[in-house]
Amino acid sequence: MKKICFYSQVLFFGLVLFSGNTLIAQEKTKYLDAEQSDPIKMGWMKGSPPPADRIVRFEDGSFFQFPALRWSVAHMRQFAPSINVSHGLRNSRSLSSSINNGIDKVKFIPLGETNPITWAESLQKVYADGVIVMHHGKIVYEKYFGALTVDGQHAAMSVTKSFTGTLGIMLVKEGLIDPEKLVSHYVPELKNSAFGDATVRQVLDMTTALQFSEDYADPNADIWKFSAAGNPLPKPKDFNGPKTYYEYLPTVKKKGVHGEAFGYKTVNSDVMGWIIARVTGKTVAEVLSEKIWSKLGTDQDGYYLVDGIGTPFAGGGLSLGLRDLARFGQLILNDGKAGAEQIIPKSAIDDIRKGGNKEAFAKGGYPLLKGWSYRDMWWITNNDHGAFCARGVHGQVIYIDPKADMVIVRFASNPVASNGANDPYSLPAYEAVGKFLISNK
Amino acid sequence: MKKICFYSQVLFFGLVLFSGNTLIAQEKTKYLDAEQSDPIKMGWMKGSPPPADRIVRFEDGSFFQFPALRWSVAHMRQFAPSINVSHGLRNSRSLSSSINNGIDKVKFIPLGETNPITWAESLQKVYADGVIVMHHGKIVYEKYFGALTVDGQHAAMSVTKSFTGTLGIMLVKEGLIDPEKLVSHYVPELKNSAFGDATVRQVLDMTTALQFSEDYADPNADIWKFSAAGNPLPKPKDFNGPKTYYEYLPTVKKKGVHGEAFGYKTVNSDVMGWIIARVTGKTVAEVLSEKIWSKLGTDQDGYYLVDGIGTPFAGGGLSLGLRDLARFGQLILNDGKAGAEQIIPKSAIDDIRKGGNKEAFAKGGYPLLKGWSYRDMWWITNNDHGAFCARGVHGQVIYIDPKADMVIVRFASNPVASNGANDPYSLPAYEAVGKFLISNK
Repeated sequence: MKKICFYSQVLFFGLVLFSGNTLIAQEKTKYLDAEQSDPIKMGWMKGSPPPADRIVRFEDGSFFQFPALRWSVAHMRQFAPSINVSHGLRNSRSLSSSINNGIDKVKFIPLGETNPITWAESLQKVYADGVIVMHHGKIVYEKYFGALTVDGQHAAMSVTKSFTGTLGIMLVKEGLIDPEKLVSHYVPELKNSAFGDATVRQVLDMTTALQFSEDYADPNADIWKFSAAGNPLPKPKDFNGPKTYYEYLPTVKKKGVHGEAFGYKTVNSDVMGWIIARVTGKTVAEVLSEKIWSKLGTDQDGYYLVDGIGTPFAGGGLSLGLRDLARFGQLILNDGKAGAEQIIPKSAIDDIRKGGNKEAFAKGGYPLLKGWSYRDMWWITNNDHGAFCARGVHGQVIYIDPKADMVIVRFASNPVASNGANDPYSLPAYEAVGKFLISNK
Repeated sequence: MKKICFYSQVLFFGLVLFSGNTLIAQEKTKYLDAEQSDPIKMGWMKGSPPPADRIVRFEDGSFFQFPALRWSVAHMRQFAPSINVSHGLRNSRSLSSSINNGIDKVKFIPLGETNPITWAESLQKVYADGVIVMHHGKIVYEKYFGALTVDGQHAAMSVTKSFTGTLGIMLVKEGLIDPEKLVSHYVPELKNSAFGDATVRQVLDMTTALQFSEDYADPNADIWKFSAAGNPLPKPKDFNGPKTYYEYLPTVKKKGVHGEAFGYKTVNSDVMGWIIARVTGKTVAEVLSEKIWSKLGTDQDGYYLVDGIGTPFAGGGLSLGLRDLARFGQLILNDGKAGAEQIIPKSAIDDIRKGGNKEAFAKGGYPLLKGWSYRDMWWITNNDHGAFCARGVHGQVIYIDPKADMVIVRFASNPVASNGANDPYSLPAYEAVGKFLISNK
């Protein structure tokens, strides 16, 4: 029973791995819609005590089952240990607003459909919990739904990876990491793993060749072992697998040739997190705080979920406030500057924006994302606006459109994990809003 | 094994109960001194991964064993689930400083000793992690030691109770709670417990008559059941006791007559927390945020540790930043005003400051605290400066001296839990600094 609970709970950590759109077939299940599943109306964890059917738990995975997950994504640290990303003591940079009421009425045709819907309608389709659109550095749109409040924090899921990649390329530009060196140069513990003869650059761009199965139907899939290793709960007595991220990563085996194909595997981000921790002597949470979060003028601390020895989950464990996510997106769009302060070297942002290898990406299995690439753990659309983004399961996103001088950040709690469920109502929507803002001077 | 781990871990929650000075005999054990036990130098949880002998865990209680506890008190939520006390989006109120270098040299004679020591020396004796002295509303002294940083958060232990009591008396003054009503009027679930025929006032002043044993040598002591109930880890399969605070509290039996004697029992604070949650429909964490924390101009969020269903531990689970604790102390000293803003009604502060029943207190078993009383979960010294304080194990304190217009806040990690270990080096030190500041105009 105990053991079953432990293993069923790892589902949450497994889900974090899905940020692509083709990994699992889109569920045909009929879910409650956004309004029906409103987590505040449903009363999750509300009451002293809450009614028995409104209590959800980490240990049995119930906290991350739809529709309860709509509440849980805004309360992750209530379920598990976490490590702070301090915003320091400086006051926040004010975000000026110039709300554009036209955005709600912007129309677009969802991918694979024929009838247009509005931006406002699309937010219901993707179970948005909060959306901010920045244009010319100002908030032009800001809405909260579900369990998220303006002073709350929401799981960023795999958007976390883009933070890890950004810190990685910053350390490259600072000279602490040579991207052409082998991973094992920095983390000798990985010498005999798949990462032993991969370069840091291949890790940053996820062109490592890994034998890492994410087949949920297979109880022996690697994903389950990774998830179990990162689970912060005490391990069952008879547990004999790796017990932490740092015990798991050296067990990953190679399959194929590094550098040839994009393969979206969360373990790359955790290896990058390990390299960052090793070269700085600090946790990824401390590095993010020192290099970005305490300088950006954020309103709130962020936090990472951690494994059993306090290692932040660099592949998907970050939770943040929506306005702070918008500040971060704007920082990236502004070539690393916030106000007059150069927080991230422009050369690091340039490295992200130049994108990765398109041929390698094309082998990665993302037919909907034609012509895209992946660089420094960011998704590069290569569209005519030069847009690039950070993406996480259940609909988390930072979408940066340089031509429209626009940043869209969104937290969501779509019952379907895969972005395949969100992209049809999101990618054309972002483009439509970008065009609307350009034309709507 | 699993079961043993679970039970040994509850020690942490048990320790929170000790804020008195006579409950356990002072250990004779020789501990590493403050410098020898410096948690940063010792390297707890430092490294990727940390060395095996520097990893501590929640599940086996190792995180709260000295000297590791010196690190853990500044990282509580890294070990367990927690609920935020949001500071909101407003910028912090600036704290002006006028550092007085004379304070370090203030001398006093520790209780029970004959030779004077200095204030600076006393901080080592009590294993201080951080101290701020406010005088006339300005910081005149601010030091950090151990694992605490100016932007970090530290366990307040039973200082938490004074927050609970303050919220309680605020709700009384707002008319939401009638202190003369029976507890069972607000929380019918407590009708058949000791609290059923106690008044809210008796709970606030801890003059309830409870059969609640805190004998650590007795494995059947109530304290262990309370601690086990509040433990957020999944319960062992064969666990058949109360599983949450709200399941435990109705099991407390009466012993004696309510209102006659002060009895320092943590469960009173958790009952008060329950009443607060019930009348507001919110968690104590939300109420603290809304009524005080988001208005006070704090730098940081605070947080409570929670039980398995997310209930904040109102008796001892709060962690805060030291400067924010100073702001709170100053707010109490200023009759509930911060700047021009009346955050706590003056009548609530008056209620605290008038103190509780001294005769009842004298029966509570605190020979060192002669003439003191207990009111609204604050300790009232009744000395000639009208000082009153909040106290928590291992040396946490808010000490308010109205005559000296002084507030002292301190976080600490004394190896000895009981304040009996700190009081000899603290109570006369506070009085000496108060007198020094009055004379040192």
